[in-house]
Amino acid sequence: MSLSEFADQVNQKPLKRHKKDEFLKQKVQRKKFKAERKLKKLEKQIVKKKSQTQDMIVISEEDDEAETNGRDYTISIALPGSILDNAQSPELRSYLAGQIARACAIYQVDEVVVFNEADSDKKESVEGEFKGVGKKGDGCVQLARILQYLECPQYLRKFFFPKHPDLQYAGLLNPLDSPHHMRIDEDVPFREGVVLDRPTKEGKGSFVNCGAVKNVQIDKKLQSNVRVTVQMLENKEESPKYFRGKAVSPTTPRLKHGLYWGYSVRLAPNLSSVFTQCSIADKYDIMIGTSERGESIDDFYLPSFKHLLIVFGGVKGLEESLSADEDLDEVDDPSCLFHHYLNTCPNQGSRTIRTEEAILITLSALRPKVMQSIAIK
Amino acid sequence: MSLSEFADQVNQKPLKRHKKDEFLKQKVQRKKFKAERKLKKLEKQIVKKKSQTQDMIVISEEDDEAETNGRDYTISIALPGSILDNAQSPELRSYLAGQIARACAIYQVDEVVVFNEADSDKKESVEGEFKGVGKKGDGCVQLARILQYLECPQYLRKFFFPKHPDLQYAGLLNPLDSPHHMRIDEDVPFREGVVLDRPTKEGKGSFVNCGAVKNVQIDKKLQSNVRVTVQMLENKEESPKYFRGKAVSPTTPRLKHGLYWGYSVRLAPNLSSVFTQCSIADKYDIMIGTSERGESIDDFYLPSFKHLLIVFGGVKGLEESLSADEDLDEVDDPSCLFHHYLNTCPNQGSRTIRTEEAILITLSALRPKVMQSIAIK
Repeated sequence: MSLSEFADQVNQKPLKRHKKDEFLKQKVQRKKFKAERKLKKLEKQIVKKKSQTQDMIVISEEDDEAETNGRDYTISIALPGSILDNAQSPELRSYLAGQIARACAIYQVDEVVVFNEADSDKKESVEGEFKGVGKKGDGCVQLARILQYLECPQYLRKFFFPKHPDLQYAGLLNPLDSPHHMRIDEDVPFREGVVLDRPTKEGKGSFVNCGAVKNVQIDKKLQSNVRVTVQMLENKEESPKYFRGKAVSPTTPRLKHGLYWGYSVRLAPNLSSVFTQCSIADKYDIMIGTSERGESIDDFYLPSFKHLLIVFGGVKGLEESLSADEDLDEVDDPSCLFHHYLNTCPNQGSRTIRTEEAILITLSALRPKVMQSIAIK
Repeated sequence: MSLSEFADQVNQKPLKRHKKDEFLKQKVQRKKFKAERKLKKLEKQIVKKKSQTQDMIVISEEDDEAETNGRDYTISIALPGSILDNAQSPELRSYLAGQIARACAIYQVDEVVVFNEADSDKKESVEGEFKGVGKKGDGCVQLARILQYLECPQYLRKFFFPKHPDLQYAGLLNPLDSPHHMRIDEDVPFREGVVLDRPTKEGKGSFVNCGAVKNVQIDKKLQSNVRVTVQMLENKEESPKYFRGKAVSPTTPRLKHGLYWGYSVRLAPNLSSVFTQCSIADKYDIMIGTSERGESIDDFYLPSFKHLLIVFGGVKGLEESLSADEDLDEVDDPSCLFHHYLNTCPNQGSRTIRTEEAILITLSALRPKVMQSIAIK
């Protein structure tokens, strides 16, 4: 055997292996394309449906541009409402929702998507075991309701949250204590308020209760009992009976001043709708799935992004959420749905990590990567 | 003015500034030295006291050496028991303790120190408002008891935890699901057990209930009703009535196999005792304090360590824990007590972070730094 023949033989194995790797890579890629195509198709169907229903109310947002102090990126998280069914008592069920709201506030999450991972068969069935009131039930709706309740500034809750069994234990939950929950006498550039049902002179705007010492008259006439973000204008000295303000988009405090202004809540009927019914105009540009079976976050580099989405699974992981989604029955591997599929807690000392724990763990682990990604941009 | 004079004048300011920085640095250093001296003094007093009381039981540990698969470093956390008093109901009070136990298991914490941050005046007083049973009370003892209860494998709890009001809601808490809580038929190298009160033949060791299908006969005669870690030995084929095992130190599974083997719990009467009454022979070599007023964790490099201690404050932070400690009345800045004083969640969107949240956040943020530090060693 000549030296070159020998060398060939030695090199053959790695070559074969390389080919196999290449093949596997292509297979994963093909699966990813397939999943993407499916999602795009679903999205188109939804857009078509929407354009057919003309009576939808569309709240237009001002075209605010990010300023030097502003924050122009957003972070969204998605999780299944079924996690509430895993709680041991009605009180703890509410507390779990409160934990999620707190995690979102700490890490300035802008949107929470609650998706349904129950089988649609089961959902519509009226047969089966009676699960009792309060403890089990529609986790998605209750989770969304408690999240919205906690996000709403305390002084506005009486306007938007009538008594409801879902909120029975809401009084026990820890407050978000976020910047848009301001004290009565705080001097701040923006305030959240409710439009009052009070007559105004011709050419003058509505009065708004902003939880301040006096009501605020804004520049526009708006429908009463609607929540509105108000930019506070300079107070004229002649001791007016009211402050002056200007109605702005809820995104303005973030875009112009970098202030965290709470999160919006969206309900999605299944996992695929998390992506396809995205309410953000530019769509999510980086989508991360979290799983024990994902790649280690230590090797992960977060590319520059504008709208980041992080998706968490329930008690049985994202595999379960995927298998419950009939629209995605062609997709068999949840990792295909995401740009990155990450294990955010390698070497875990417990066999399981609960979703409410995973949210804090993941957001804490991703924070320096988000900072880095933003700094480069 | 000559060019050199001009240059002198220009340079003067930075020089002055440099001197001021230097002065401040020295001042901080002096404060640190003072705090260190005080802690050493307290430690000596404790050692002296210990040597005077001869009737103390000392459980000797085997001198296990780390093997290739083993883990020779430890992570300890310390937190005030007073955080339980901040819970809104007896059920949530227990749940809070459960959250801390879960966080410790997820991040393989080896020791939890619960310190008292109540004023010693208040502690000994019998006057004052009656706080009701269950909701308020001695947070330290209850927290420690629930932590121990959850750490104990389920099959051993009936031996070590008689009915107690502190454990009234323990049934609602999420299990740790850690590797030393094994199922009855799992084939594992180590098991936790309780020594049975059962006569054995001369020269034979005690029988231990290890939660396996059969009891285990170990190599030594031990006092009955004591918890013991058992290394399972090869099963002889002649269908014995019992398995064979060997009593080892509870640190052996970690040192030899890198297995997470739960945490120990220690009660400390005040903040300074967290450091001075350290139960680890080599002492903590890196001590980290956590605070919103600390330096950003992003700029932090964790040096090589053997025993890491991370200390968390309560509702009012470590400042409160320090001011309640009479032994440390000369120290006025908690940062002087630690090698590093870190803000582990920069840019927080909530004005407050609760201790149970801070533990998960901090351990998640420190994990890659711990991994890096270990890899270098």
